Amino acid sequence: MLNFNYCNKANIIFGKKEEENTGKYTAQFGKRVLLHYGMNSIKKTGLYDKIIKSLNDYNLEITELSGVKPNPVLSMVNKGIDICRKKNIDIILAVGGGSVIDSAKAIAVGAALPEKENIWEYFMDKSKKINNAINIGVVLTIPATGSESSTSCVITNEDGYYKRSIGTSAFIPKFSILNPEITYTLPAYQTACGCSDIISHLMERYFTQVKNVDLTDRLIEASIKTVLINGMYALKNPTDYNSRAEIMWAGTLAHNGLLNTGRIGDWASHYIEHELSGIYDIAHGAGLSIITLAWIKYVYKENIDKFLQFAQRVFSIDIIEDKEKAVFEMICSLENWYNKMGLPTRLSHVNIDNSRFEEMAKKAMVAREHVGNFKKLYFDDIIKILELAL
Amino acid sequence: MLNFNYCNKANIIFGKKEEENTGKYTAQFGKRVLLHYGMNSIKKTGLYDKIIKSLNDYNLEITELSGVKPNPVLSMVNKGIDICRKKNIDIILAVGGGSVIDSAKAIAVGAALPEKENIWEYFMDKSKKINNAINIGVVLTIPATGSESSTSCVITNEDGYYKRSIGTSAFIPKFSILNPEITYTLPAYQTACGCSDIISHLMERYFTQVKNVDLTDRLIEASIKTVLINGMYALKNPTDYNSRAEIMWAGTLAHNGLLNTGRIGDWASHYIEHELSGIYDIAHGAGLSIITLAWIKYVYKENIDKFLQFAQRVFSIDIIEDKEKAVFEMICSLENWYNKMGLPTRLSHVNIDNSRFEEMAKKAMVAREHVGNFKKLYFDDIIKILELAL
Repeated sequence: MLNFNYCNKANIIFGKKEEENTGKYTAQFGKRVLLHYGMNSIKKTGLYDKIIKSLNDYNLEITELSGVKPNPVLSMVNKGIDICRKKNIDIILAVGGGSVIDSAKAIAVGAALPEKENIWEYFMDKSKKINNAINIGVVLTIPATGSESSTSCVITNEDGYYKRSIGTSAFIPKFSILNPEITYTLPAYQTACGCSDIISHLMERYFTQVKNVDLTDRLIEASIKTVLINGMYALKNPTDYNSRAEIMWAGTLAHNGLLNTGRIGDWASHYIEHELSGIYDIAHGAGLSIITLAWIKYVYKENIDKFLQFAQRVFSIDIIEDKEKAVFEMICSLENWYNKMGLPTRLSHVNIDNSRFEEMAKKAMVAREHVGNFKKLYFDDIIKILELAL
Repeated sequence: MLNFNYCNKANIIFGKKEEENTGKYTAQFGKRVLLHYGMNSIKKTGLYDKIIKSLNDYNLEITELSGVKPNPVLSMVNKGIDICRKKNIDIILAVGGGSVIDSAKAIAVGAALPEKENIWEYFMDKSKKINNAINIGVVLTIPATGSESSTSCVITNEDGYYKRSIGTSAFIPKFSILNPEITYTLPAYQTACGCSDIISHLMERYFTQVKNVDLTDRLIEASIKTVLINGMYALKNPTDYNSRAEIMWAGTLAHNGLLNTGRIGDWASHYIEHELSGIYDIAHGAGLSIITLAWIKYVYKENIDKFLQFAQRVFSIDIIEDKEKAVFEMICSLENWYNKMGLPTRLSHVNIDNSRFEEMAKKAMVAREHVGNFKKLYFDDIIKILELAL
């Protein structure tokens, strides 16, 4: 186990009807609120009206910035920064999933920068440190990215379609309201993609070369099993509170830093996937189900025992004949689960061919020495993983 | 799963040599430090000198209050409150285990009360709410109580030897420094008692009547397995960093509120044990190994399936013949583990007879409607559990 520092100050308010308390929590951080959200779905479900009512109950001054799309873009972030500066915003309230929250995070940091500085420079140059942000509050609608209490933020720059992430504790929202009932109306595919993203956050942490991480290994296995089981339940019965609640809380814990304590995560699958969904119109979670399987096939020999532990503890696979066979049985089990969830497991399932592999591999390497930590990957490795994913 | 609010702002600094940074973290909260510790062990091990050096490096004004004994007492708390008021202390630095930290917590709250108010009243009357405390920092020497990031505090009033606990988020230390190396010198029995306390914190949470708590069930099982295995390793090789680290981090996570999210804990074993160690000279962890086994025997029929899940997932016990048999096999497995750790599992092992059972049961019921939540226990039930423990 490596030395670590763990501190996550997000106030999680979890449970039925809690969105009705949005005003109470928001008012703790000031009067001028930037209400940030996506397209029209929160209006259709009635969530928008509940939030407005609750904010009005506390006499808050609301400015709206809507229209955040999946894979949030820099132009929207810059628009938000302008509004925050002009209106002297106290708190950005993000109502949505990871895209809206990440957009809010980038705005919150950008608005706290000196005017001459450009937020994008921080995404491209990891040596530039971020220390300040204006307050962020969240009402979560999609359990997936864990952005509701994470230190990370992913933004796409339309100029070249670079998708890049940065991390700082300044990004951690002051509060996040999580009501599983809000997720009842999520389409099955979005539910599945969310589960895939959560599983990936857990696996990216699990597959580390750091030894003696027994407790966090077991906590991650526990979380993965919970999502595997409850993901299936939620697809079968979308209005089942219990499974929706398990997925929602697991999604937060998968990415709030706790399960990374004393370890170094991998993140190659995420980085390679970012190039996929940066270019093609594919959901992040769907890209992850494809890339994760290919990544396992490419890297498992780097530490086969870690994959065997995973196979045994998560999928109850015994090693009867040989180790390789057990690993392949595990890959089949995971692939089966993705398929049952309605997720693609091959690039061909989403009509992506090899024509832009070089472009993606090249972009994944921009401003990076290598991708991934379990096995350090370079241009040629990324091409091979993409080929395995065909 | 019940609605919940989870927020733990403790900054955990974990790993080798981190105690050498005590001054840096303490100085963030002011200049005037009350250094609070127990007897001479931190001087013998050299920890005291390291802490003093680090505090001096940051030119902090140190006032010392030492002499905290196991089962910390109200008279020491009152002494500390006086010092804090007279010297206008900014932060109490607790260097020790749960007793020292709990003493520091009670001092921190007491010093923030109006002068005419008595801290003990808050322990006896749960309707009185605590909102303020002066800052608390911790250097942990014994992984056991989880007090280093918990909301709780247990103090014994020598006037009648009442041992009582209270909880408030104001008790959460601003920072806690956890270096597993510091625990190398713990005697085997103290290591075992610490593990017993951690296991109990996990079991008190696990055995709930709240349904659909899949994720937290699994996280608790993962934590218990980690302590069962690594406890044995640490006893065999006291200077094994890896097992010491697993125990130390598990001890914190067992009691930082996370594993209680959406559930209602039981706490009967803890409350009954408090009366034991409040009267007899017995370590809390040793009292818990005795009481926990008796408690299981007395209550398992209230929800046998929960105990079967525990038996299967934690001890890999299959239900072959009947459910009762599987539960008793689990009790034997747990008893075996306690015995292998050198812990008592019967009152007779620590020379306690039934002569003061009524006194203990009566005291456990003072100012309480019932004890425990898995099964609500009253005077007669407590007597029966103590008899089962003979």
